[in-house]
Amino acid sequence: MSSKDYADANFRGNMMSTQLLIIDILDHARRRFPQQQIVSRVHSGAIHRTTYLESWQRTAQLGHALQALGVKAGDCVASLAWNTFRHFELYYGAAGLGAVLHTVNPRLFSDQIRYVIDHAEDSYVFVDPSFVALLEEIADQLPRVKGYIILCTADEMPVTSLANVQCYESLLDGHPTTYEWPRFSEEQAASLCYTSGTTGHPKGVLYSHRATVLHAQAAASPALLDLREDTVLLPMVAMYHVSAWGAPYAAPLAGARLVLPGHGMDGPSMWEMIRDEGVTVGLGVPTIWLTLHNYLREQQVTELPLERVCVGGAASPLGLVKTYYEQYGIYWQPIWGMTETGPLATSLPPSPAILALPEEERFRRQTTAGKAAFGVDMGIFDADDRPLAHDGETSGELRVRGPWICSQYFKNDDLSSFPGGWLATGDIAVIDAEGHMKVVDRKKDVIKSGGEWISSLEIESIVSQHPAVNECCVIGAKHPKWDERPLLLVVLNPEQQFDRTQMKEHLTGRIAKWWMPDAVLVVDRLPRTGTGKVVKNELRDQYGNYLIEQGASA
Amino acid sequence: MSSKDYADANFRGNMMSTQLLIIDILDHARRRFPQQQIVSRVHSGAIHRTTYLESWQRTAQLGHALQALGVKAGDCVASLAWNTFRHFELYYGAAGLGAVLHTVNPRLFSDQIRYVIDHAEDSYVFVDPSFVALLEEIADQLPRVKGYIILCTADEMPVTSLANVQCYESLLDGHPTTYEWPRFSEEQAASLCYTSGTTGHPKGVLYSHRATVLHAQAAASPALLDLREDTVLLPMVAMYHVSAWGAPYAAPLAGARLVLPGHGMDGPSMWEMIRDEGVTVGLGVPTIWLTLHNYLREQQVTELPLERVCVGGAASPLGLVKTYYEQYGIYWQPIWGMTETGPLATSLPPSPAILALPEEERFRRQTTAGKAAFGVDMGIFDADDRPLAHDGETSGELRVRGPWICSQYFKNDDLSSFPGGWLATGDIAVIDAEGHMKVVDRKKDVIKSGGEWISSLEIESIVSQHPAVNECCVIGAKHPKWDERPLLLVVLNPEQQFDRTQMKEHLTGRIAKWWMPDAVLVVDRLPRTGTGKVVKNELRDQYGNYLIEQGASA
Repeated sequence: MSSKDYADANFRGNMMSTQLLIIDILDHARRRFPQQQIVSRVHSGAIHRTTYLESWQRTAQLGHALQALGVKAGDCVASLAWNTFRHFELYYGAAGLGAVLHTVNPRLFSDQIRYVIDHAEDSYVFVDPSFVALLEEIADQLPRVKGYIILCTADEMPVTSLANVQCYESLLDGHPTTYEWPRFSEEQAASLCYTSGTTGHPKGVLYSHRATVLHAQAAASPALLDLREDTVLLPMVAMYHVSAWGAPYAAPLAGARLVLPGHGMDGPSMWEMIRDEGVTVGLGVPTIWLTLHNYLREQQVTELPLERVCVGGAASPLGLVKTYYEQYGIYWQPIWGMTETGPLATSLPPSPAILALPEEERFRRQTTAGKAAFGVDMGIFDADDRPLAHDGETSGELRVRGPWICSQYFKNDDLSSFPGGWLATGDIAVIDAEGHMKVVDRKKDVIKSGGEWISSLEIESIVSQHPAVNECCVIGAKHPKWDERPLLLVVLNPEQQFDRTQMKEHLTGRIAKWWMPDAVLVVDRLPRTGTGKVVKNELRDQYGNYLIEQGASA
Repeated sequence: MSSKDYADANFRGNMMSTQLLIIDILDHARRRFPQQQIVSRVHSGAIHRTTYLESWQRTAQLGHALQALGVKAGDCVASLAWNTFRHFELYYGAAGLGAVLHTVNPRLFSDQIRYVIDHAEDSYVFVDPSFVALLEEIADQLPRVKGYIILCTADEMPVTSLANVQCYESLLDGHPTTYEWPRFSEEQAASLCYTSGTTGHPKGVLYSHRATVLHAQAAASPALLDLREDTVLLPMVAMYHVSAWGAPYAAPLAGARLVLPGHGMDGPSMWEMIRDEGVTVGLGVPTIWLTLHNYLREQQVTELPLERVCVGGAASPLGLVKTYYEQYGIYWQPIWGMTETGPLATSLPPSPAILALPEEERFRRQTTAGKAAFGVDMGIFDADDRPLAHDGETSGELRVRGPWICSQYFKNDDLSSFPGGWLATGDIAVIDAEGHMKVVDRKKDVIKSGGEWISSLEIESIVSQHPAVNECCVIGAKHPKWDERPLLLVVLNPEQQFDRTQMKEHLTGRIAKWWMPDAVLVVDRLPRTGTGKVVKNELRDQYGNYLIEQGASA
């Protein structure tokens, strides 16, 4: 769309210029849902309870404490922390001042952590006791950091070699429980999250107040997470990972109860919180729901309060979609997004139309990305930047734009990921006439065989349904004749087997003949990133020459 | 809240500067819900069906047609029209160009219509055949109007004395079904609606794109109208009255089906649409639901597809709240707002917590205004502009602020309704510790008796529950000793009676003794404004001296 001359008429409406600021979300929650709970698992493993009202008061104390530390608007402070009420307070306290909370991913390599803290120029680091050791390793290479605040009580303070260490609870202690939060432009930066690409340094995405508030409204809406006062929301995605998909903003906006798992990302801890808190909606990557399923199966649990799991960060395997419905009656709600998209962009909520579909058709749809929320504009493009038809068949690179989409990386002039005002996602996708989007593959994971494309995702989704298979991965292995051919790696369920013959039987008729993987390898585990994604690069390094080594020839 | 120095640090996030424009709502609907229907009753009484996709295409034609007429960004065009698909197209087509649609209320006095069209400098008037006569009366006093477009087909064109008349369908005919909609600032004005106060000229509220889009998102959310793909929404509030409470924006945003009643505001027409279209949610003032109830009772209908009626514009009478639940199983969902507030600001949706209350307590709550949606900040203030406690007891003038609240009237420098950056609503209200707001009375309707306040609304709500009473109204009548005393006016159900003795019995124990009305008068009807509100001024003029005439003395 182009701007025409007459669009500059500048005939403004007579509406208040109220800015969309993050602190107003917590203000809304404390005024209208004062007794709604934030439940956290803390460092000791114990369950801690607070309310939006109390959180508002403690966030005011944090505001005073940050001010006393000299933190001012535009400054960055870092967190290295699990999902807890203290991390939640940091989200609002830092943003409330106009400062920026840089949520550092503790699963990055040590040198990456050093790099991001330095690159963001973080003045203070707020750190969970569990991650203190990690900082001790690199503290001498962090000259800009003025001090470290440990997220615990005075009793829980660890012995540490870090300099200028304070206790979070002592820091807050004695400060007034009200704060006259400043008003400023909604364009002001509020939080910072780095993506760990497979090459080069991590790149930062700097979110504004406006983007965060608009994203929170969309996230809470029926098109995405569909949160209400009676929702009990458990983000099993970390608050250091794209703000736990915005859950700490969307839950108070909707008045939902927020259940924060702390470090308890294992099966028993998850199940305990789901059961004891009556969790109705969970957020997380497919792996986390596989972890839960494996545990529940072991424990022979089939009755859960969970109604939906909202699943993003990787493709939804058909096998798990079915398992969740058939064994637990839980709707697997796919979500698509990236760090650069806020992150939530599309979803497929359980609308009556979706629930009315024949089961197999519905399951299949649940492995796609669903529709974009209002505010997210999507297009698919060919290699020459030409827009392609939304016909459900044509595939091209997915590009998105909208008020909560990244326009460039932090302190980075390379705009190659932002052609023509869009974000180029690196996903190959199709979009149908009703706006349903399906990621065919990551651009870099697509298998180029004899000049044609094979979708690794598609094969994985079908293999995942085989009862012997716990998880799987398909990569392109080098081939002297076809350039690349699919190679299947599987992790089996206990005491199961799965060989090339069984694979062929299972896949025959479900994929094109020439998509049939050339080999199947049973492995003990798949390598994953800190956020649970399979690291296909590593598998390509390890197994990329497998077919050649096995004697494949032209 | 004050701005502190450091708030000007101006450290902007790296997010796209996508503006919130109204045309994007329809773009979203046509891409993601292309076949969702817009159903209208047209001039002939017939039912017309279109879809969001077709509406998008016709809106493009309208864009070309408006451009051909010379309408450009910043220009105002008027509509005098019922709720139909053509009016819907005007909402998007005018705003899409950056022009302003001035929705004229045909129920205004003739001279007020002349005034508002002239004051807004409308260049064209789009008019339903039913309102042509109304314009013919004043056309010679509208020198700025360049032409009139009748909202009908060529066959339906009426004979008229209006000059420069065109047929809407002929105007659209032949234009391309795509339009390259311009991008511009979200602050741009988009629509204009005048409020008809009881004194002076009507005052205009000029809505921006930003306010309209943010309001639409809030309106569609569970906190307000709670619209979804499977909602069938019937706005029985006119599109000339604060944009039918934003329904033409919120419905396509949510993908809901939109049912537009045209001129069919009577019982039989309403019931026909509700039944035939399977309407699940209705919007309207209490009177419209009284009209429906009276008709359904007559027809002995008790089974309706309606799940909720969302009711605003006047206080919700307890009697109707109960009747709707007990006779039809319909949840009466109160809403509070004004032309100056977008209009939707608060509501009490049927959350599990509300539904779990004992019935009598729930009904009572349903006569209050509920809680504010995120984005609406509310306060109550005393006569000296001091903020009062939100304790559920202290009452004061309700003031609101937020991104879809009016900051001043159109071309009007009088800021007396906008003290300190708030909108002073003219309502006296209480707010409790959980944000529930209850309007005690209009500031001007409160009865001042012996230096104390009596809430006319409170008494009306209790009287409305008496089985003999169809509707009622309480006004302050002059009294030589007490200054004012309450006087009750009732309209009875067929073949019923209600006298002072029955009134006393009904009210005793439910209101303070000194609130007991001094007299009860049975009347045939209550005078109402075009939007269905009782005109208390008129009743005060007529009955204000009743008690003195009857011999009340000091």
